[in-house]
Amino acid sequence: MLDENCIFCRIIKGEIPSLKVYEDDKVLAFLDISPVNKGHILVIPKNHASNYLESDDKDISACAVAVKKIGKAVVRAVEADGFNIGVNTKKAAGQIVMHTHLHIIPRFNDDGFRHWPHKQYEEGEMEKYKEKIIKEIGE
Amino acid sequence: MLDENCIFCRIIKGEIPSLKVYEDDKVLAFLDISPVNKGHILVIPKNHASNYLESDDKDISACAVAVKKIGKAVVRAVEADGFNIGVNTKKAAGQIVMHTHLHIIPRFNDDGFRHWPHKQYEEGEMEKYKEKIIKEIGE
Repeated sequence: MLDENCIFCRIIKGEIPSLKVYEDDKVLAFLDISPVNKGHILVIPKNHASNYLESDDKDISACAVAVKKIGKAVVRAVEADGFNIGVNTKKAAGQIVMHTHLHIIPRFNDDGFRHWPHKQYEEGEMEKYKEKIIKEIGE
Repeated sequence: MLDENCIFCRIIKGEIPSLKVYEDDKVLAFLDISPVNKGHILVIPKNHASNYLESDDKDISACAVAVKKIGKAVVRAVEADGFNIGVNTKKAAGQIVMHTHLHIIPRFNDDGFRHWPHKQYEEGEMEKYKEKIIKEIGE
């Protein structure tokens, strides 16, 4: 269930201090020490898994529901205008700690963060992506 | 359950075309027409709610679990190195369509997207944030 070399498992065990804001039987949430905006929270399943794809569905559900409860509270607590949920899965996506975690980032109308730009599909390309993805879901 | 003025409800009803990759009783998923990377998917609950905070827990859970299944397939289908999950809640957070939706963005080692920079807490400030958030969760 826990991995002794994992920093988040050590936070769960209390070996590494954290500022906890929420805990239930499946989930722990604490302040990110390096926040995008102040009030930035990390929500983690207590069962160790290296990323979102490796966590079981019950843990994923518990985290997603906890994010709703905590997100609402964070928005009120810091008087934010909204919030982002972010999950980085694998190094290429920005994942640093290899224990599933969901970011809650409070946002403000004037905070200046930009979202990533968009690409365009070529004619007929989108349908090919659709077919490839459906094939993989089916397998 | 559906809002006749909502573009995503109209996609669910089939009034507006979309390239669907997954559907179950609670969830629909389709290709974003304006992808950050090709293969970018939107996962939405079939029940209309204006954002993540307004969706009920069953719909949130169903979406979060569907994202795992679809995310795994997208990574394989487009030969990605990872993926991001993103949820923008309210306009300040970049939400444009006011129907709860989760983004699945495939990522590649060399795609060049940067994550937002981090701030630093002043001495003792983090504890104050913790207390404010705990107070709001409790209410």
